[in-house]
Amino acid sequence: MRSLQSGEVAELGYDMVLGNTFHLFLNPGHERIAALGGLHEFMAWRRPIITDSGGFQVFSLGHGTVADEIKGRRAQPGRHSRILEISEDGVRFRSYIDGSERFMGPETSMQIQAALGSDIALAFDECTPFHAGRDYTEASMHRTHRWLERCVAWHADNAPPGQVLFGIVQGGVERDLREASAAATVAAGTPGIAIGGSLGADKDQMREVVGWAIEALPDERPRHLLGIGDVDDIVYAVGAGIDSFDCATPTRMARHGTALVPDPRHRWRLDVRSPKNADSAEPLQSDCACEACTNHTRAYLHYLSRAGELTAVRLLTLHNLTFMKTLMTRLEEGIRSGTYDQVADEVLKAES
Amino acid sequence: MRSLQSGEVAELGYDMVLGNTFHLFLNPGHERIAALGGLHEFMAWRRPIITDSGGFQVFSLGHGTVADEIKGRRAQPGRHSRILEISEDGVRFRSYIDGSERFMGPETSMQIQAALGSDIALAFDECTPFHAGRDYTEASMHRTHRWLERCVAWHADNAPPGQVLFGIVQGGVERDLREASAAATVAAGTPGIAIGGSLGADKDQMREVVGWAIEALPDERPRHLLGIGDVDDIVYAVGAGIDSFDCATPTRMARHGTALVPDPRHRWRLDVRSPKNADSAEPLQSDCACEACTNHTRAYLHYLSRAGELTAVRLLTLHNLTFMKTLMTRLEEGIRSGTYDQVADEVLKAES
Repeated sequence: MRSLQSGEVAELGYDMVLGNTFHLFLNPGHERIAALGGLHEFMAWRRPIITDSGGFQVFSLGHGTVADEIKGRRAQPGRHSRILEISEDGVRFRSYIDGSERFMGPETSMQIQAALGSDIALAFDECTPFHAGRDYTEASMHRTHRWLERCVAWHADNAPPGQVLFGIVQGGVERDLREASAAATVAAGTPGIAIGGSLGADKDQMREVVGWAIEALPDERPRHLLGIGDVDDIVYAVGAGIDSFDCATPTRMARHGTALVPDPRHRWRLDVRSPKNADSAEPLQSDCACEACTNHTRAYLHYLSRAGELTAVRLLTLHNLTFMKTLMTRLEEGIRSGTYDQVADEVLKAES
Repeated sequence: MRSLQSGEVAELGYDMVLGNTFHLFLNPGHERIAALGGLHEFMAWRRPIITDSGGFQVFSLGHGTVADEIKGRRAQPGRHSRILEISEDGVRFRSYIDGSERFMGPETSMQIQAALGSDIALAFDECTPFHAGRDYTEASMHRTHRWLERCVAWHADNAPPGQVLFGIVQGGVERDLREASAAATVAAGTPGIAIGGSLGADKDQMREVVGWAIEALPDERPRHLLGIGDVDDIVYAVGAGIDSFDCATPTRMARHGTALVPDPRHRWRLDVRSPKNADSAEPLQSDCACEACTNHTRAYLHYLSRAGELTAVRLLTLHNLTFMKTLMTRLEEGIRSGTYDQVADEVLKAES
């Protein structure tokens, strides 16, 4: 977790982190990490780790805009290497580290995740972008289902003790495809299920698409929603039955000088670098117990962030992760006490 | 302290930090910091602060290579603005922030340091570079002595409660000038004295120059040596009677992937980014109690540092500051127990 040590993430109350299969495959290499005792030992993280399938990043090399659509980033043509071939076997591509030709398929993804020693592995999938169109999305989805079978078979024979496999529901923004993909993933029998791929052009469509997938999933299996992290989306998705999330937004926002605050009218965002914070003696958030809020003013964070100081990144990261953890705890308590709708309403209408 | 919060620096055992008068003058401005409760409050540092005079940086704008000589940096022509005029009053220069014309003289420096509310203020001085030559160095030194008188006068009338003023010994690498400057600084009556300016072309000359200055100083006044931080230099200088130091080297090294280790043959430096650390399961230093050494391998730090991860900067900063604090504690114990020479010998001959 950028700018933090693993122990600090645990202290913030997080139960699981996500390790990136694609990046760790290329650098420093899964075999090196395995030789050093696995990813838990390597990063000194003593709690569960989920590793993604590598599919999202590897296909982003070719599709280019998957990452943009889902993560809200600008495309960076030329920065990443290119896909050389997508076939039934998997994907051949050029490494962004050294330009060498590499390959990743279902078995490769499983091998890497086994070497990393994660607790939850994700089945290798193609993450189709919004603009892919129905025909490509459907054909890709069927291939992802065949890859899921191969992942299940490899995992049954070779998985490290204790590691479980989650299948990933694809199918783009088509209701019948999402339902078919959910059914196929359920049928593959993985003990948990993730929802991935393009979730649409806007928040309304995302909620509709996630809803179709969830309806087709059995209650007893945990559901992970890949790459979603906005406050309102999380409140919706938890209410709809999602159990876990991974998203780079809170930490990336911190690196760019943005704090998460209880202010729905500004999409829960406070631009610390705005000139209006230059003299502010207020904390980021008056009822927050994080180090940034208990020790410092907005003026200090404004100064540090604009000066490019690493301490600003760190303080904002600690704050944003505290904000997200507090949010998740509130939602969890809402579920337990049967007051979820009320809690959701409070979160969505809170004033800064 | 880059990549750390103030509380963490205190936890590492540091008793005092240095605040940079010149930089804080330009950004965010001493008046803004004063309005926010002073520098202690602004950065949430609850222990003493020493502020430098501003002279080192302001004269670096013109001399260019003072910083290079003393700090071991490469010159960055064009990055800094230029000095417009040096006069008996002080220095007119262009701000590197916005190009505006600014002025700093003895009273300005004192005003800024008063507004910051530091515990130890340093008198405004010209920090002459090695290449300045005897004539310039001598004339500058006399002006620095006159500025010291003005600082003492301003401070006597206007200093915030509890703030003390230290004069700074200049005089370059000339024995008679150093002795004259030490005598003039002692005569000015400040309760503590700093040694600044060019300390020569190499370590031998630095020790000789520092030795001349120290001999002329009374035992009962604390002595601060500005900008020196190499392990062997500190061991020498503490032995010679220096009480405190400030130096950016340990934290700057951390940002560039270098760890301090007990290895005199390699100048106490370990290049974490070297390929030989890529697979190393060893800690940076086996007997170090810092977070980097107790939780992680050199291989992990190698990977993080080469990947440009902020966590690498942080872990190496924590390690290097732990190393320096441990060193200072050992030297202090050596003084207390009358075994300083033996301790110094152990430090200077330690094997990694």
